[in-house]
Amino acid sequence: MTTNNNRYSPAIILALVAALVAVSWLYVAEKAGSVVSTNNGRTIAGEITSGIEKEHFEWKMVTSWPKNFPGLGTAPETFAKLVNRMSDGRLTIRVYGGGELVPALEVFSAVSQGTVEVGHSAGYYWKGKIPASPFFTAVPFGLTAQEMNGWLHYGGGLELWREVYKPFNIIPFAGGNTGVQMGGWFNREINSVEDLKGLKMRIPGVGGEVFSRAGGTSVTLPGSELYTSLQTGVIDATEWVAPYNDTALGLHEVAKYYYYPGWHEPGPALEFLVNIDAWNTLPADLQAIIEAAARYANQDMLDEYTARNNAAFMDLQNNPDIEFRRFPDDVIKALKKAADEYYQEITAEDEVAKKVYTSWKAYEEGVRNYHHITEQAYINARDL
Amino acid sequence: MTTNNNRYSPAIILALVAALVAVSWLYVAEKAGSVVSTNNGRTIAGEITSGIEKEHFEWKMVTSWPKNFPGLGTAPETFAKLVNRMSDGRLTIRVYGGGELVPALEVFSAVSQGTVEVGHSAGYYWKGKIPASPFFTAVPFGLTAQEMNGWLHYGGGLELWREVYKPFNIIPFAGGNTGVQMGGWFNREINSVEDLKGLKMRIPGVGGEVFSRAGGTSVTLPGSELYTSLQTGVIDATEWVAPYNDTALGLHEVAKYYYYPGWHEPGPALEFLVNIDAWNTLPADLQAIIEAAARYANQDMLDEYTARNNAAFMDLQNNPDIEFRRFPDDVIKALKKAADEYYQEITAEDEVAKKVYTSWKAYEEGVRNYHHITEQAYINARDL
Repeated sequence: MTTNNNRYSPAIILALVAALVAVSWLYVAEKAGSVVSTNNGRTIAGEITSGIEKEHFEWKMVTSWPKNFPGLGTAPETFAKLVNRMSDGRLTIRVYGGGELVPALEVFSAVSQGTVEVGHSAGYYWKGKIPASPFFTAVPFGLTAQEMNGWLHYGGGLELWREVYKPFNIIPFAGGNTGVQMGGWFNREINSVEDLKGLKMRIPGVGGEVFSRAGGTSVTLPGSELYTSLQTGVIDATEWVAPYNDTALGLHEVAKYYYYPGWHEPGPALEFLVNIDAWNTLPADLQAIIEAAARYANQDMLDEYTARNNAAFMDLQNNPDIEFRRFPDDVIKALKKAADEYYQEITAEDEVAKKVYTSWKAYEEGVRNYHHITEQAYINARDL
Repeated sequence: MTTNNNRYSPAIILALVAALVAVSWLYVAEKAGSVVSTNNGRTIAGEITSGIEKEHFEWKMVTSWPKNFPGLGTAPETFAKLVNRMSDGRLTIRVYGGGELVPALEVFSAVSQGTVEVGHSAGYYWKGKIPASPFFTAVPFGLTAQEMNGWLHYGGGLELWREVYKPFNIIPFAGGNTGVQMGGWFNREINSVEDLKGLKMRIPGVGGEVFSRAGGTSVTLPGSELYTSLQTGVIDATEWVAPYNDTALGLHEVAKYYYYPGWHEPGPALEFLVNIDAWNTLPADLQAIIEAAARYANQDMLDEYTARNNAAFMDLQNNPDIEFRRFPDDVIKALKKAADEYYQEITAEDEVAKKVYTSWKAYEEGVRNYHHITEQAYINARDL
């Protein structure tokens, strides 16, 4: 049935077709995803879901280790992969080894300035800028990995860490732990504190400072130079990490004596550093994902080192060219005295270091006493 | 400019209007979210985003502890909250205390049968059904928390655990660790292995089995009855956890002697249990979120116990009514001998237990030797 009134002008038809095309396009565009917008100068690919724009973030992460360096370099990869999986690709993090994008020891500055969004490193590298920072990593005769994690997450440590890094526009997260590091490789025997005199040892950071105060000569050298330096006699001794990493450098081939106990880095905590402006652009779910991925990587590194150091140690034990030696008590006592003096000095000079040390020391004394009747009592008793 | 040819029939107009309405409705419906569908009989609220239906999951979690019980009951809450935050509410988990939905010791069955999707408990509760299960929690003179996490995540332990639970339609995840548990509270002194004879001690599980073999009388009682049983002399001694939980039960008010070292549960790993059918309904991002939340809670519990046991221990140390005592060496040796005999028996009777024990024992011997020169050497040296 048609009548004359039922005829419409092309203008109406055109308007209807245009509206249909517009709505259809909107629908199809959303299905396809990918609306590109900018946020704080960063280009972000986004998709609109449930009426809320769910942005995609592409972050860069710089680290202080060679890419995929066993243990230390595994953690940032584990972290990045897990964030990608959990966010279903909404937050992707590209990991760079030390020197690839910025030098290994400029990770803190790069994150602070926003050159990159995230970094993986160790707090004690920044002790020139922040004298308190070694307490968030490891100090001589300090906390074991388990004790350190207790202080950070239930003893006020992490709050202090965040307070200290905030002026640098960085939020830190615990980023792995190697467990107790070994006392190092030596070309000669240490039978008393006198034997430290004239001993040239590669031992950087606070450990090196304390070693020098106890009579030794500390040297700082990158890992890549340790084998040759030890072989040619440029140094008499070096510490590195523990059997898993030490044997990878071949240190057992050039030094006869492997010393314990480690005293300078009893439970070094690594760190994930996130630029605060970048952090603030993330929705709450991606912030929670970052937090959980950091905690995952934090435990995972310790698990990896525990199992793999153990395996590497078995090989060393069967190596007739290696002699295991224990530092004499007077050496340990001299190093301990030097460490205490160092803490007194830096806390006298720096208010922030004093505040951090006060919290750390109260926890350390308590947990050490507690471990006398638990971990320590147990691991000694099971050898009976 | 109009001509006669440019007139169209109402049918075309109607078709165009209908198409416009349909596409607009589709767009608006998606914006509003909430399409309800069903999946495996569960009602799921869904939303369509990016062309993929993103389902909402509502899960139930049963546990073997009173709801929010400090430490043990904190972990499932931490896990559920983190999953909710990371998934932006797409996976919500409601936590039930022991006995609220199913009895405390029927968590495994409930997850196995799919009554609930997830559970939080301890593997050694199922040793009647699975003799190998205590090796995934704790056994006398076994692994510390750090060592246990190394075995599980880098020593083949988790793969074995999953293989053993698979016939029960369950996928397990490490779900927290208390650290070394204390030797317990005693009403009388233990000066030799002879003093174990006739001693009635609440000590359940493998620890109880070993305690009985060494001459004592082991009793199983729920935590809620320990205070009164100790006070009225129904039992002479009881273990529970460590200072944080023990003092919450008031055990220090009714027993004079607090014994160390703990020997029966040196690093108990709790467990998250996920029903495999429920697991398989999850998209990959939510599976990754579950995995990370479990690992977060796994470390978090140990951190909490380390810090809070330490704080509770400080109070006990200052309590003049408590006497700390160390088990004599002959008692430790007798318990150790009984434990070894027990392992020989269960592994001779059960092929699965033998396979698990073989992996566990090889790792245990290696890591114990390794800790002689690292953790153990360090914590003994720092007391010099």
